[in-house]
Amino acid sequence: MPTKLNPQWIVGFVDGEGCFYVGINKMFSMRHGIQVLPDFTVVQHIRDIKVLYELQAYFGCGVVRVNNGDRWAYRVRGHKAILDTIIPFFDKYPLITKKQQDYLLFRGVIQMMANKEHLLVAGIRKIELIKQKMNTQVYIPMSPAKKPKI
Amino acid sequence: MPTKLNPQWIVGFVDGEGCFYVGINKMFSMRHGIQVLPDFTVVQHIRDIKVLYELQAYFGCGVVRVNNGDRWAYRVRGHKAILDTIIPFFDKYPLITKKQQDYLLFRGVIQMMANKEHLLVAGIRKIELIKQKMNTQVYIPMSPAKKPKI
Repeated sequence: MPTKLNPQWIVGFVDGEGCFYVGINKMFSMRHGIQVLPDFTVVQHIRDIKVLYELQAYFGCGVVRVNNGDRWAYRVRGHKAILDTIIPFFDKYPLITKKQQDYLLFRGVIQMMANKEHLLVAGIRKIELIKQKMNTQVYIPMSPAKKPKI
Repeated sequence: MPTKLNPQWIVGFVDGEGCFYVGINKMFSMRHGIQVLPDFTVVQHIRDIKVLYELQAYFGCGVVRVNNGDRWAYRVRGHKAILDTIIPFFDKYPLITKKQQDYLLFRGVIQMMANKEHLLVAGIRKIELIKQKMNTQVYIPMSPAKKPKI
């Protein structure tokens, strides 16, 4: 049996290593030829594949697959699984870093998909605009909580 | 006042983003010409500098400084500060990833330094051997906790 992870540990780990991503792909078989594919991913070196399986066990969904070379990923893909598992978790246990901003934008896309807005051209355009604001690492100035010691 | 971080969040964040490092530098002003300089570091993009100050406030030591370009670091350097703050924390709240192996090796060096072994040639040689085992990302095979879903 995998270890039961502590939710605050998961938040810290995802603040460091997690990614909320919205794929927008051309897909001629689909309505409007566009597929919107959100995913939540945590990538690790293979030496820590056990932690990826522990995340899978915690959330009860998603897959652990090779990502690139010796990097593996835990991935939850598609708005239904994300709506049922990932959103309730991060609503209950908010991220502390600025990744929370990416999460809230991602959450907005998931809600639009739950309302089927991604099946309309106007909805896809709105999702494209939201996606542009995500994972940008834009510097938002703030006052430091404490000055560094000299 | 900075937010008070949850210790489990810190463990998760350090499992992802932290580094335990032992520098061994030529320093002609020192005994045997060798300086052993351990440090604990967490690096973030400047957009999350606030979290680095929160770590500094939590541990009550260390500095927040620019690392490289738009990357900043929270750093605790030197065996005395590490022995008083970082070691008690990670002894109480162990890391979950294989970074725990690096931590235990790092902890061994700190203990040697507390015993002044780094002032002897034999001690420096031993520390050099320990350092070679750290942060290698060596793949240690293990049975997955759960098979991936197909």
